[in-house]
Amino acid sequence: MKKIYLDNQSNTILDDHIFEKMLPYFKENYGNPQSIYSLGQISKDAVEQARNSVAKLINAKNNEIIFTSCGSEANNLAIKGFAFAHSKINKHIIVSAIEHFSILNAVNSLKQHGFEITTVPVDKQGFVKIEALKQAMKDETILVSIQHANPEIGVIQNLSEIAKIVKNKNVALHVDAVASAGMIPIDVEALNIDMLTLSSSVMYGPKGAAAIYIRKGTPVKTQIDGGVQEFSKRAGTENVPAIAGFGAACDLAAAEMRQNAAKMQILRDKLINGLKEKIKFIYLNGPVENRLPNNVNFSIEFVEGEALFLLLDAKGIMAASGSSCASKSLKMSHVLTALEVDTAVGQGSIVFTLSKYNTVEEIDYVINEFPAIVERLRQMSPLYDHFMKTGERMKAGPGTDYGHEHEHCEN
Amino acid sequence: MKKIYLDNQSNTILDDHIFEKMLPYFKENYGNPQSIYSLGQISKDAVEQARNSVAKLINAKNNEIIFTSCGSEANNLAIKGFAFAHSKINKHIIVSAIEHFSILNAVNSLKQHGFEITTVPVDKQGFVKIEALKQAMKDETILVSIQHANPEIGVIQNLSEIAKIVKNKNVALHVDAVASAGMIPIDVEALNIDMLTLSSSVMYGPKGAAAIYIRKGTPVKTQIDGGVQEFSKRAGTENVPAIAGFGAACDLAAAEMRQNAAKMQILRDKLINGLKEKIKFIYLNGPVENRLPNNVNFSIEFVEGEALFLLLDAKGIMAASGSSCASKSLKMSHVLTALEVDTAVGQGSIVFTLSKYNTVEEIDYVINEFPAIVERLRQMSPLYDHFMKTGERMKAGPGTDYGHEHEHCEN
Repeated sequence: MKKIYLDNQSNTILDDHIFEKMLPYFKENYGNPQSIYSLGQISKDAVEQARNSVAKLINAKNNEIIFTSCGSEANNLAIKGFAFAHSKINKHIIVSAIEHFSILNAVNSLKQHGFEITTVPVDKQGFVKIEALKQAMKDETILVSIQHANPEIGVIQNLSEIAKIVKNKNVALHVDAVASAGMIPIDVEALNIDMLTLSSSVMYGPKGAAAIYIRKGTPVKTQIDGGVQEFSKRAGTENVPAIAGFGAACDLAAAEMRQNAAKMQILRDKLINGLKEKIKFIYLNGPVENRLPNNVNFSIEFVEGEALFLLLDAKGIMAASGSSCASKSLKMSHVLTALEVDTAVGQGSIVFTLSKYNTVEEIDYVINEFPAIVERLRQMSPLYDHFMKTGERMKAGPGTDYGHEHEHCEN
Repeated sequence: MKKIYLDNQSNTILDDHIFEKMLPYFKENYGNPQSIYSLGQISKDAVEQARNSVAKLINAKNNEIIFTSCGSEANNLAIKGFAFAHSKINKHIIVSAIEHFSILNAVNSLKQHGFEITTVPVDKQGFVKIEALKQAMKDETILVSIQHANPEIGVIQNLSEIAKIVKNKNVALHVDAVASAGMIPIDVEALNIDMLTLSSSVMYGPKGAAAIYIRKGTPVKTQIDGGVQEFSKRAGTENVPAIAGFGAACDLAAAEMRQNAAKMQILRDKLINGLKEKIKFIYLNGPVENRLPNNVNFSIEFVEGEALFLLLDAKGIMAASGSSCASKSLKMSHVLTALEVDTAVGQGSIVFTLSKYNTVEEIDYVINEFPAIVERLRQMSPLYDHFMKTGERMKAGPGTDYGHEHEHCEN
């Protein structure tokens, strides 16, 4: 059976070239980078070379890059580390409504420590409401965290405008760039960003490595205390093969970014247009302009998400519903909720995220197979039946409440 | 040149069999375990199988095992997670003086949040002073954290006695078993332990995976907030290959532990006796009985640590000085300081930690080469010269103060 992987916001396929760069650090060069004998220094050199590659990709300096084990850890370090380093000054933090759960739940946990959190809404396309952001800023604000692009709906925020507002008030800006880094350019100097998160596992690199850029002079309290690794900002033996792979992923992204994006964007638009043409009552979530080149997100009326995924999987098509931590839920994701997508419609939402490996043939296959899946499910739907008979939509019933549990992502 | 790796407390060599168990999860089975399509479920199954292997090794239940990225992260989760989950009840925590820096610096960071920390001393062999522990316990004590074995001096604590004291007062007990897990048996049920840390990278497994056992019903506040991974106790995409490798490492440890320990113990004793026979003014740190089967730690008078390492490295012998995060320092480690080792002597300390891969020939080579290295360095030492001429030891000079900076491991 065909295997068409279209869940690249969740995890990309490890690139062969990158895997080869990792291989020497499993069996041959197994030294601990903190050891002073030469085998340790080989590992240390690999880590420092990777640090250079990460820094270069985002126009940072080497000593501004801290390696972590995943994007969630990096986001937690940014949010909590900054918060605890500034808690004696002030305690107000602003985030957007469509941040990743590792941001939303991190700021939520800070409430226990007396922090006040303001969540800025987004418009129906997912752009942060600039006026709301301006109004949320107050004298007590110490940090604003806004993602560069949203992995679920692909919206790319206007960071230069946001940075101007935040930095004009001398407030620190953290940017979660996990979904965008390596896919579209980002320059921490040009945008005047204080902290930025990026992750290997969605950049054709391995799982187990991510990084946070922390502008020199930005106080951040260590969250994993222990040894002197990572400039004493993150203890623990460095995961050398994963870090080496992450570095190689950054080098490759710098070299291939433009051509990969151009290729994916063509396939993305082909998929969007193909499905819109063949399926009725289908709505694109997120914007048309300023959208990640690999993101397709549709809400499909009169179908339910879980059945959709299962039938797609049966055809070898791997997709997702919203952020990956919400993918086991039938309920609408917090992102679609923030977009004020109609509940009944949003439950049938699906996210296709492309990689550089996807082909025209694969996209044609999805365009061919998907409409029949939707049609089959609609034939089983009492809501669709009612609509076809009466031309009227039924109100969302009691089984379709959503959203609240997602705030803590414990469903 | 020969390469003799004797720094296995810092990092073990990845076992071939374990690496093979990891390989399918890099390129072939790249799915995110949180995804509901079959490729995701293959990854999920690998994680759950590994969880079962870890649980089995320490006699825990599967849902009591939380995967983290390293031992330091696990120790931080145990200490801070438990502390913040109980901060409204009480705020007193007890640790021993020879814990790993990820324990000592974690409790130190809790002082900012109003916690009180008592550090219990050890005797000259490294055993926790039982009377001092009893005296340190008070009504406000919520948690005691004592390591199973110390990676630097090899001392194995009398956990059953310690657990009895702690649990009789209804206080929680955390055990850092990073240095011992997989090398000597440990049973969390038999010992009535509430939390226990173990790590892959010193068990012939890969870097990037560790675990904390949390007894069912023990409240621990998540430290990396975000998605629902690891029973919502640790967010972030699971490092599937590393976790699969860790599971394989636990299986292998369960099968090989006894024979590996017996083999290493013979080599350990050969090395200890061989060096004692050939080198004067050499002192074993740590106990003779209740010592890790792979640990050799000597303080060698009239030599300095750094020069010793460099000359050993030049002969292809890789060793360590104290805990790996202190290995770049000329100063005496916090562990030797706690043992009240004489400063002048302790500066010339060296740690050899064996693995199952070491051979009799390798140990013979060290016994042959090491005395000449010591002799060469002593010929350069004014302290040794003075001693040989007068028979008197010089007092430690101003350059030999030590210890305090180590508390924060920032040297």
